Amino acid sequence: MPQDPQNSSPAPGDPFGWLEEERERRRRAGLVRSLRPRPADSPLLDLAGNDYLGLARHPEVTAAAADAARRWGAGATGSRLVTGSTELHAELEAELAGFCGFEAALVFSSGYAANLAAVTALTGRGTLVVSDAANHASLIDGCRLSRAGTAVVPHADPDAVRKALEGFHGRALAVTDAVFSVDGDAAPLPELAAVCRAHGAALLVDDAHGLGVLGEGGRGALHAAGLAGDPDVVATVTLSKSLGSQGGAVLGPARVIDHLVNAARTFVFDTGLAPAATGAALAALRLLRREPGRASRVREAARGLYERLTAAGLDAARPDAAVVSVRAPSPESALDWAADCRDAGLAVGCFRPPSVPDGVSRLRLTARADLTDAELGTAVATVVRTAPAA
Amino acid sequence: MPQDPQNSSPAPGDPFGWLEEERERRRRAGLVRSLRPRPADSPLLDLAGNDYLGLARHPEVTAAAADAARRWGAGATGSRLVTGSTELHAELEAELAGFCGFEAALVFSSGYAANLAAVTALTGRGTLVVSDAANHASLIDGCRLSRAGTAVVPHADPDAVRKALEGFHGRALAVTDAVFSVDGDAAPLPELAAVCRAHGAALLVDDAHGLGVLGEGGRGALHAAGLAGDPDVVATVTLSKSLGSQGGAVLGPARVIDHLVNAARTFVFDTGLAPAATGAALAALRLLRREPGRASRVREAARGLYERLTAAGLDAARPDAAVVSVRAPSPESALDWAADCRDAGLAVGCFRPPSVPDGVSRLRLTARADLTDAELGTAVATVVRTAPAA
Repeated sequence: MPQDPQNSSPAPGDPFGWLEEERERRRRAGLVRSLRPRPADSPLLDLAGNDYLGLARHPEVTAAAADAARRWGAGATGSRLVTGSTELHAELEAELAGFCGFEAALVFSSGYAANLAAVTALTGRGTLVVSDAANHASLIDGCRLSRAGTAVVPHADPDAVRKALEGFHGRALAVTDAVFSVDGDAAPLPELAAVCRAHGAALLVDDAHGLGVLGEGGRGALHAAGLAGDPDVVATVTLSKSLGSQGGAVLGPARVIDHLVNAARTFVFDTGLAPAATGAALAALRLLRREPGRASRVREAARGLYERLTAAGLDAARPDAAVVSVRAPSPESALDWAADCRDAGLAVGCFRPPSVPDGVSRLRLTARADLTDAELGTAVATVVRTAPAA
Repeated sequence: MPQDPQNSSPAPGDPFGWLEEERERRRRAGLVRSLRPRPADSPLLDLAGNDYLGLARHPEVTAAAADAARRWGAGATGSRLVTGSTELHAELEAELAGFCGFEAALVFSSGYAANLAAVTALTGRGTLVVSDAANHASLIDGCRLSRAGTAVVPHADPDAVRKALEGFHGRALAVTDAVFSVDGDAAPLPELAAVCRAHGAALLVDDAHGLGVLGEGGRGALHAAGLAGDPDVVATVTLSKSLGSQGGAVLGPARVIDHLVNAARTFVFDTGLAPAATGAALAALRLLRREPGRASRVREAARGLYERLTAAGLDAARPDAAVVSVRAPSPESALDWAADCRDAGLAVGCFRPPSVPDGVSRLRLTARADLTDAELGTAVATVVRTAPAA
């Protein structure tokens, strides 16, 4: 057995020697990851990406990216508080807040940065964060960075949140994904909001997988739950999934957004989102307003995938949004399964530890609004044909 | 006096009531920040942004951004390990590593994310991080997120680093900015590397402000110090300053990069950098290779600014790269000074707490390779004319 690398002494002159042990440990556990750069025109049928509405390559969206780069420059040139805020950022923030039903919005260079900002700036020493055990890594890192006490509660369990809040008499924030990225299941938002209100706590919801998919015309999970714009609710979203671009945003009461402008380190100390990404997200948002049927189409596609995979005997999780996950017997078999799909022309995601909170490896299929019925049929047939023996 | 907001109890039904106290506290301290979105064609002379080489709006760079968006899509569509790695990312990584003299590179959606990745993945429980007191917020947050012990040492003090390393007998990493963003001074890299080597520690250097400015043809501070490519040295850079785009990268030995691909949470759980930003950074890098004189021009411009400001009696810090900072008597006077400059047609940065490690507020001027001598003269005259009484 290799030594615990955390405690091994460095070889003299080779302070990175421990990386070899780590590499060997990953190899033995079947957890080696490597990059596979794709060409511009991949022949694969893509059920791996998060381009839920099929907008990343929509001509209106890519033209908006190109126009923004030419008009505003390739980069924002500075942090948002110095030179990095353009009128394009302000326009996107106003329209995004309006669309989702919130008072104000603030755009970040990634959803990760938006989550770090929201968690850290809304908590602090002496406060409590109550965090769902299946929350995204960026929310977990936000909890770690905040100096708050953190109570990790069982997944999707409002009663556990209630118990965690009951014993605490200071400022508290409950934090949850709206749709969990591994199994595609939705959080019980109305129940969570009720529990928070009964205990004077605020609620922060990461709607990365809900924007564009859930709610009227894709207005997101909080809009669907009737919670958008409430004075004690804050949402984060990504611009890199349904909106086909890059970046993230925090949505909430104007006083929360104003506080983030002043206090959120990943806002104050990061370069502003590039104009091309800002313009692309704005164009995608306008397209979604004009074509609200995209949101229901992606949900139907996900349900169709789930029903056909289940009918074929696979262990798929019922999707609440666009993500359909299928359990695999082991990390190695999940990796082989995904490779066999790829060899057969189908790109699917493969989630292994540490990307899965319960340690169970999975194939992860994402529906898109622009998948045809024939493509869905091909995808299901491929996944079923390549499935490992149970 | 308002209560300490960290400990005040929430008003029933208003879990964000404490934000009003925070806002009032900022107002009294002269530390209110607000966004000022700029138009596409600002009439201001810009000495506030970090577009050191004047490439953010260079037609070759913006055309590359536009082409990449059209060819590859507006977003990367997924994390780098799923669908978010394109051949364009691989090309940028190879050329960036080659240019700076490192074995391998890994691109992130921001320099912030690159720093969080490098610090957290190269440390861990039971290890030691030795961190310069003036390091950038993203390195500090990396230290907080890592479970390592952190020794914060006095600014630019190799002897303090030596003392911190001497008493520790496990894995250790020294972390420093190459050029500090507030005062524009350079770290003593050769001395730091020697101290690290004598104690078997690795060295991580954030070269955000050195890439494109320092070293032969802008190859960066580590290249200039003869440390690029060494097996115990890792660098981080941004694509959003000299390269005029967005994003960041880690450069280092291939085994370090391979480890980050597997273990760095801000790599594994973040959407890949947008193709437009990737393509723009690649075009800017190629332009810098072709026009290496841009690097020396920005250094000369910074030195010229410093000399003229000092000659006029202002308290400017001698610049080691592109940033020239000028001390102000108070946060309020710094803010007024920057506003007076802006009213006179000159954009300058204004750094106030908590963005300054020593609590001293400053004007921050950034040189650019494409500033004319007349523009430099105008900038100096404006800063001098609007200076507050000492």
